Amino acid sequence: ACGSGEDTPDAVDGGVSGPRVEWRLATSYPPSVDILYGATDRLAEQVSAATGGNFTIRVYAPGEIVPALQVMDSVMQGTTQCGFSPGYYYTGKHPALAFDTTVPFGFDPRQQVSWLTRGGGLELINSIYADFGIISFPMGNTAGQMGGWFREPVEGLSDLTGLRMRIPGIGGEIMSRLGVTVQVLGAPEIYPALERGAIDATEWVGPHDDEKLGFHQVAKHYYYPGWWEPGSTASLMISREAWDELPTAYQEILKTACGDILSWTLAGYDEANPAALQRLIQNHGVTLHEFSSEIMEAAWRESNAYLEEQAAADPVFRTVFESFSAFRNQAFPYSAGNEGSYARFTFPKIETG
Amino acid sequence: ACGSGEDTPDAVDGGVSGPRVEWRLATSYPPSVDILYGATDRLAEQVSAATGGNFTIRVYAPGEIVPALQVMDSVMQGTTQCGFSPGYYYTGKHPALAFDTTVPFGFDPRQQVSWLTRGGGLELINSIYADFGIISFPMGNTAGQMGGWFREPVEGLSDLTGLRMRIPGIGGEIMSRLGVTVQVLGAPEIYPALERGAIDATEWVGPHDDEKLGFHQVAKHYYYPGWWEPGSTASLMISREAWDELPTAYQEILKTACGDILSWTLAGYDEANPAALQRLIQNHGVTLHEFSSEIMEAAWRESNAYLEEQAAADPVFRTVFESFSAFRNQAFPYSAGNEGSYARFTFPKIETG
Repeated sequence: ACGSGEDTPDAVDGGVSGPRVEWRLATSYPPSVDILYGATDRLAEQVSAATGGNFTIRVYAPGEIVPALQVMDSVMQGTTQCGFSPGYYYTGKHPALAFDTTVPFGFDPRQQVSWLTRGGGLELINSIYADFGIISFPMGNTAGQMGGWFREPVEGLSDLTGLRMRIPGIGGEIMSRLGVTVQVLGAPEIYPALERGAIDATEWVGPHDDEKLGFHQVAKHYYYPGWWEPGSTASLMISREAWDELPTAYQEILKTACGDILSWTLAGYDEANPAALQRLIQNHGVTLHEFSSEIMEAAWRESNAYLEEQAAADPVFRTVFESFSAFRNQAFPYSAGNEGSYARFTFPKIETG
Repeated sequence: ACGSGEDTPDAVDGGVSGPRVEWRLATSYPPSVDILYGATDRLAEQVSAATGGNFTIRVYAPGEIVPALQVMDSVMQGTTQCGFSPGYYYTGKHPALAFDTTVPFGFDPRQQVSWLTRGGGLELINSIYADFGIISFPMGNTAGQMGGWFREPVEGLSDLTGLRMRIPGIGGEIMSRLGVTVQVLGAPEIYPALERGAIDATEWVGPHDDEKLGFHQVAKHYYYPGWWEPGSTASLMISREAWDELPTAYQEILKTACGDILSWTLAGYDEANPAALQRLIQNHGVTLHEFSSEIMEAAWRESNAYLEEQAAADPVFRTVFESFSAFRNQAFPYSAGNEGSYARFTFPKIETG
């Protein structure tokens, strides 16, 4: 072996060598959100293993360096070289960052990945991130989210009027147009608020993540689908300056790991959600409901109206929206046909056990 | 820099160094099947870029080293260090290798990936490959396939009786039980046979790949869904001996690239299929049909009967089938609920343009 001095590149193991690089990563997901937190652990392991331990990434949970909603800021300021967070947390910096994650009645998980990686979406999104000194790669996928937890059933629009629901982001904006009194609460505040009746309903992610927060103990009515987050993806946001300083081999390793983990997180939710939902129904007396067509139709109308308004107000938003719409106009009918036909015939052949 | 001698590890570029390794890869997919052929090109590029050019993989198209259906043999014999092929080509070596790819009324593309990577499927599959000196990682995903091309419409089972159709593998076995006269033809033979009326129908992959073979010029009726291949994945099959000789860093790089490409191929089909189908309908007079429920119900019955028979005959097949069934029993009802509800409401909102 050559170069075993203290500040010389060295193969710690793995049979390769390269410069020593130590990065910090801030994530928006606490360890309890284990699949998405697991994404960052996996990133650190893969990057280290692929570089013989020379490129290390230390993961910081929310609050350790920055709060959950300031991950992008931390990367912009160079506090961390990278961060893992969904773009739609940062629509205050630019409204079109919503498309990096998901929008109401947007893409399902596969369509979202396809639009980003094959349909030109990521180039558009990264042209926005570039203004903040960031380059991003999609690295997490939650599967289609659920419609959330309600203390009482909601049948039609009249049941939404005045309902106090915790729902952030664009989903909250649309719900507000449907008459809901929207509240925004961080994860630790939701359960207590629901328990003491300060809110009537909340949404979170899906069965696997929701089960751990225990909403089923105080709200027994679980609705689907989560039309405001049909295919949420989260991104690895990387400081452009830190990226440019990486050896090109490390850039490749990092980028490839993001692609692997994007698929791996979705596979994780697809494996964990069915069992979690079964437990919620069978062991915890949860009743499953589908949103009524009255609510769905109104949500569809208001969601499209909202996106059109934003597009009219902001040219960058319009550019991204036009790309999104063109992709959606082809993807939706195709998915409804071939694979939709398979799903409609086959999936109901097996009933919930 | 250290070690710049001719047979010493060196950083060609990329800022890293490691031992020089040169592999050969045989693929079952010709360059015209561009997304799956692109998978191997991408693998070679990623592995090279991540190792500073020190680990190179040369891709050989079908026939250059071995024929398309002998890729696994080529890896077993050490002719190539690795190969890219679907496991179900090799059910003659072991019938349960079908589960590595897809089985009739099996998983959709996400369920297949989830079962393999999170549900214990890959461990079972690799315990079979191990007997042939191989370790595999899923690396390609075709999306749900189409039901194929028919010269005349097929309404019910009586229309299938005596129909001459090119359909290989288990799909062919089931079609045969439904009365079809099954033929197995390699890609170059299919079009001529269809053109001169030697066969009445054929299946291939989906709109993007099918369009290039030109079936629409002689058979105008295009059916869905391809219930015999609902979520086909192809695998990188690696010689265990060659794998064990790799530095662990290269193993990690190779494995991670497979995961990235698995997602990237599916995203590619999801992007390309809708536009190809639109061209086939609008420019080439193709009529789209959904298989009738009579045909679907019979196919569902015969497919399950076939899998049960195989499981009764072979204990390894039974072990894999039981894992498959347990996963299917949870995944199907869940997919039919939340995301199924979203798809059923939302996708038809946009009509084929």
